[in-house]
Amino acid sequence: MVDLALLGCGGGMPMPNRFLSALLINYRGRKILIDCGEGTQVSMKMLGWGFKSIDVIAITHGHGDHTVGLPGLLATIGNSGRTEPVTIIGPEGIREIIRGLRVIVPYLPYDINLIENPIKEIAFNFLEELLYPIALEEDTTENNSNSLIKGELIISTLPLEHSAPCLGYSFYINRRQKFDMEKAETNNVPKCLWNNLQKGQDIEYEGIQYNPSMVLGRGRNGIKLSYITDTRPLNSIVNFIKNSDLFICEGTYGSDEDLHKAIKNKHMTFSEAAKLAYDGNVKELILTHFSPAMTEPEEYVNNAKNIYKNIIIGKDRMIKTLKFLD
Amino acid sequence: MVDLALLGCGGGMPMPNRFLSALLINYRGRKILIDCGEGTQVSMKMLGWGFKSIDVIAITHGHGDHTVGLPGLLATIGNSGRTEPVTIIGPEGIREIIRGLRVIVPYLPYDINLIENPIKEIAFNFLEELLYPIALEEDTTENNSNSLIKGELIISTLPLEHSAPCLGYSFYINRRQKFDMEKAETNNVPKCLWNNLQKGQDIEYEGIQYNPSMVLGRGRNGIKLSYITDTRPLNSIVNFIKNSDLFICEGTYGSDEDLHKAIKNKHMTFSEAAKLAYDGNVKELILTHFSPAMTEPEEYVNNAKNIYKNIIIGKDRMIKTLKFLD
Repeated sequence: MVDLALLGCGGGMPMPNRFLSALLINYRGRKILIDCGEGTQVSMKMLGWGFKSIDVIAITHGHGDHTVGLPGLLATIGNSGRTEPVTIIGPEGIREIIRGLRVIVPYLPYDINLIENPIKEIAFNFLEELLYPIALEEDTTENNSNSLIKGELIISTLPLEHSAPCLGYSFYINRRQKFDMEKAETNNVPKCLWNNLQKGQDIEYEGIQYNPSMVLGRGRNGIKLSYITDTRPLNSIVNFIKNSDLFICEGTYGSDEDLHKAIKNKHMTFSEAAKLAYDGNVKELILTHFSPAMTEPEEYVNNAKNIYKNIIIGKDRMIKTLKFLD
Repeated sequence: MVDLALLGCGGGMPMPNRFLSALLINYRGRKILIDCGEGTQVSMKMLGWGFKSIDVIAITHGHGDHTVGLPGLLATIGNSGRTEPVTIIGPEGIREIIRGLRVIVPYLPYDINLIENPIKEIAFNFLEELLYPIALEEDTTENNSNSLIKGELIISTLPLEHSAPCLGYSFYINRRQKFDMEKAETNNVPKCLWNNLQKGQDIEYEGIQYNPSMVLGRGRNGIKLSYITDTRPLNSIVNFIKNSDLFICEGTYGSDEDLHKAIKNKHMTFSEAAKLAYDGNVKELILTHFSPAMTEPEEYVNNAKNIYKNIIIGKDRMIKTLKFLD
């Protein structure tokens, strides 16, 4: 089960009644933040999920409405008592941006583990109860059914088409396989090893090598969440978001009549986001990153619903829970 | 007449119900902003005084709660259509801070005129309807009564005692001297020169040198506004704020019992601010920059009123008008 909260739904500049677009994901008490515009930490304070447990910050791109809040948030995370490293992921140039913004918070009581423009998927496991990136080993076994080895959480990125280097993100939460007692007994696995094997550990015991697949049942579906802003629609997005349980996508402009603005400013209309959701066969679409000029996004949703039905207009601090299905 | 609005009254971190301390001054339609924390531009949007007319931004010090909003605000000022330069004043290190923060807004449609750690007072005059800094010439005349030569607005700074280089600010709005017709006639000043002399211009006409003092009456009191945050109380502050029409001062801690925190974190209690107001013989004191831990600053004001009576507890977007008295 994964909880998530839209911290804001605005693009461009923070508004009195709409925070800038950002998302907070809560997985087993650990938090992943996507984007951090001016005021994001205020919306987080209103939400009340805390600051100390933010293990990962994923930045889509360097524009101010997605990054200005970073130095203030990093300071607040420090003030919350955190001393464990925070992983920050971002596109090409993110190191330079963080170096610049940190001019006002040069000293933090924790390290920043910066991953700039990752090419491969990044796998995270729980390490001392924190979500921590692990080196993703090449899968050399022919039939590697143990998803734990691949990490409990996989973050994938996709280069988008905006006026600055920009990344789309997808988050795949692997579901732990069920323990299969029959299989464990068939494989003559000693009972004292069952618990650790179930957790994904390889164990040598009394001269015999045991591995998790000897006690685990069939693979189960995880949860897939995709987050795409700021960009023009791309064919590559369709494959990237394929079968997502939830697709959160920018809809900077509600009206199809603003398509020329969307093209000029490298954003999307509601209809374009809906077309991606349809082609990507996602279960649900939440629209976000509304232009400051659009005060009532709801007014424009019906048009997009002709293309794809299951659309929700994002609202600040809207909370969703995604559950494992089987 | 000068209008001013407290954009926020908080210190440390932006809160859901309290923006970070910042002040907006409106003098004849032109704006001066003091400090720009995360969210300051949102409070400005709520206030509705506009962004394009901000001619001067004065930064007290480089801590995040006073500067994080700068890059977003600079972008918003640019989006408002401004092309004329903006003057930014700040303490030692402000150039480096702005260089860092501007990593996300490297291109602006206007120039920034940066004044780092000014030693002398900075005089501003209206130039093409904008408040623009003028070089302050040495006053070599023995009896220079023409305040126009000194500038319509004088910004003075004072080094404070905080954990980073920090400046206090005072703003003195010179009042134009009245036109004295009797004096003009006694001095045989041709009528065609009266208007320009009244505006402060020196004029040579038909071989004779005329200056403003030949047509202007006695000097009149201007308006003095002082703004002091973040600092421990200092003797030098008393002289700096002397006789201010309004003294806006930090009161990070309400209770005298928090004096040890004030000393440790280089801030002030309400009582310490009240003592400065009393010693400085100011007309009124507004307290601001409240600790996030202090949810109801009003609860602590009575104690400070035993020291100095005319205290107002600041509130977000509280507006004051200061009038010329004679």
